[in-house]
Amino acid sequence: MMSQNLLITTSIRNWDEQNKRLLSLVNTLNEDQLQNQISPGRNSGMYLLGHLAAINNNMMALFELGENPLPELDDIFIKAPDKKVEHSYTVNALKEIVLQSIQNLNENIARISEADWLDRHSNVSPEEFIHQPHRNKINVLISRTLHLAYHLGQLSLLK
Amino acid sequence: MMSQNLLITTSIRNWDEQNKRLLSLVNTLNEDQLQNQISPGRNSGMYLLGHLAAINNNMMALFELGENPLPELDDIFIKAPDKKVEHSYTVNALKEIVLQSIQNLNENIARISEADWLDRHSNVSPEEFIHQPHRNKINVLISRTLHLAYHLGQLSLLK
Repeated sequence: MMSQNLLITTSIRNWDEQNKRLLSLVNTLNEDQLQNQISPGRNSGMYLLGHLAAINNNMMALFELGENPLPELDDIFIKAPDKKVEHSYTVNALKEIVLQSIQNLNENIARISEADWLDRHSNVSPEEFIHQPHRNKINVLISRTLHLAYHLGQLSLLK
Repeated sequence: MMSQNLLITTSIRNWDEQNKRLLSLVNTLNEDQLQNQISPGRNSGMYLLGHLAAINNNMMALFELGENPLPELDDIFIKAPDKKVEHSYTVNALKEIVLQSIQNLNENIARISEADWLDRHSNVSPEEFIHQPHRNKINVLISRTLHLAYHLGQLSLLK
């Protein structure tokens, strides 16, 4: 089991590292900067904060750790592009929401066992998993880490 | 050894997947789009192509696979920001250079053994590696994959 651990510990370390970069970047940006678009006509910084929080919260269910604490974010920040759905979240609320989503998820994933990280996530049936054994929980975390890096590259443009 | 394999195969699959996304994005962009800046005053698409190629080529030495085929890219696309160093690379040349850098690296990393992926890369001394065992070759590939995702998020703004 020692070497399966290596995949899991490496992946969690990279997840933590990218989140650290996100929070440290967000802390250097003021309210105006986070309201700006990353490029003219593109997503705003605050939309991307809501988007990342919604994606994090969805992992709770994917990992069978509990309910999504804020499912109402999905319609605003995942299913719709920026400014399509009216909402009253402020920049500061979204900063807090993304921080909470990371802390909540991290506390809960600490409970996932090694065997469970390598088991299917909740969107894959046992039958599908036989033929697609890479659709496990650790691969979800890895692809969410890449997704975070992708949006970090965009958020860095707000500086 | 089977489960160390899991870290290595997973990491290489993610590397390949991000590169596929890069090449497919680049193929949808025309010359003008690739000359544009990702956001006003920021890096151009063609600078980022040169940057990614230079980073790929540097992995040849880090992995002790051979010489960097185009070390002259470093001064233009790594050590200097966009438009600081004059050069005569065209958009089409840079598209070809990034494609070559990926193909060349991928052909060569196929020769790396499982044990060697988990061994130190060439910038780490044996002494340092005792205390920092995560500074191995596979972690270089993983962090380069995250670096690629970061810039993919930016290049996607050229669409």
